[in-house]
Amino acid sequence: MKIYDIPGFPSPLRIRVVIAEKALASRIEFIKVDLPAAEHKQSAFLAINPTGTVPVLQLDDGTYLSECTAITEYLDNLEGNPTLTGTTAKEKGLIHMMQKRADDQLIDAIGIYFHHATDGLGAQLKPYKKPEWSDRTVWGQMHRDKAISGMKYFDEVLKTQPYVAGDQFSMADITVWAGLIFAGFAQIAIPQECTALVAWNAKVSERPSVKNPA
Amino acid sequence: MKIYDIPGFPSPLRIRVVIAEKALASRIEFIKVDLPAAEHKQSAFLAINPTGTVPVLQLDDGTYLSECTAITEYLDNLEGNPTLTGTTAKEKGLIHMMQKRADDQLIDAIGIYFHHATDGLGAQLKPYKKPEWSDRTVWGQMHRDKAISGMKYFDEVLKTQPYVAGDQFSMADITVWAGLIFAGFAQIAIPQECTALVAWNAKVSERPSVKNPA
Ligand SMILES: N[C@@H](CCC(=O)N[C@@H](CS)C(=O)NCC(=O)O)C(=O)O
Ligand SMILES: N[C@@H](CCC(=O)N[C@@H](CS)C(=O)NCC(=O)O)C(=O)O
Repeated sequence: MKIYDIPGFPSPLRIRVVIAEKALASRIEFIKVDLPAAEHKQSAFLAINPTGTVPVLQLDDGTYLSECTAITEYLDNLEGNPTLTGTTAKEKGLIHMMQKRADDQLIDAIGIYFHHATDGLGAQLKPYKKPEWSDRTVWGQMHRDKAISGMKYFDEVLKTQPYVAGDQFSMADITVWAGLIFAGFAQIAIPQECTALVAWNAKVSERPSVKNPA
Repeated sequence: MKIYDIPGFPSPLRIRVVIAEKALASRIEFIKVDLPAAEHKQSAFLAINPTGTVPVLQLDDGTYLSECTAITEYLDNLEGNPTLTGTTAKEKGLIHMMQKRADDQLIDAIGIYFHHATDGLGAQLKPYKKPEWSDRTVWGQMHRDKAISGMKYFDEVLKTQPYVAGDQFSMADITVWAGLIFAGFAQIAIPQECTALVAWNAKVSERPSVKNPA
């Protein structure tokens, strides 16, 4: 299999943690996409992912999969022993509920803030970020506020259970963890009162797959 | 089980089609939430879904699940015979990829347009829609444009395969179908050139579960 991504970026990290969790690194070749040079907005890349984002997984049969949730479902179920996406109906439901909240309220919201209300990845990518949509700052700040509310929401959740979707580490933890990495890049501080979120983040950061992603 | 929703609305319809697909109607009690009266923004409802949206599924053990993707995963896997969310790793990957695209590029984008750039559900709900975020119209129109691009994207996909995620009807078809219902409410027309999307919509609308949702 091949992964098109760029090391160290939040969404690619989600999948590199999954690969470490599933011990699949030896089966994957990584191909670097130059995001600051806007390589992901050119036709060659858009042909493999029309949404123009990384990571993209190419299966051995040639099929391209994008969207971290989809790639995680694929890798987690590849050998028939899912450990990150749930085994029972209830686990699957809870993990996908928290996964969607982590996308909407954290990582996707921060992406909008980062690319529209800050310098983002720099001058070469900016023209692809629709500056003509005006009021970029209001729109961006609104998503920063959403991310801060998201942090407070996950803090509440983590006051009552050890992991984002319940008793077990899952895909949803990886997304919240990557969301906090992205928040750091975007200089959105975790509110001081979010002590449960900070403690959970410290615990998750000690996990071997998170310490040493693929 | 109990479902909190309001009949005829796009996201509730997604789950009512799932219930018909899985023949689960006799096991579910429906409880109406008064959206135009902003019942879903009051503390009683926020306690069962902090995101403040319908539908919400209450499991027999009392657990609340929200987010249509999560509820679909639960109902589809309840009896161990998934038919809408995939059985192989590749099916799961493709369905979740298209599901996320249908959320981002269609149903969620239309929701933002509908609630922020039109009268939405009326005067009682408007105060919950953050008018202070200013430039509501630009932000809304941007999401209408996104939805129209989404329609063109799904049209391209449906030129080459019978269903949104491949050869089989899946959760992703239900989301695109509900997205087009929502586009109708929001008076966003399907571009005339999207003939494959229109033909697919006509075909899916003839499906028993779609003709007669729960
Ligand atoms: N929903 C996508 C988000 C992926 C994403 O936004 N990736 C970032 C890198 S961390 C990206 O490609 N950004 C490029 C851009 O926005 O121009 C997923 O789950 O894979
Ligand atoms: N991401 C949610 C979206 C649900 C949603 O937006 N539902 C609409 C009804 S179609 C709603 O509750 N809207 C209320 C509002 O936005 O105030 C899901 O998948 O369940």
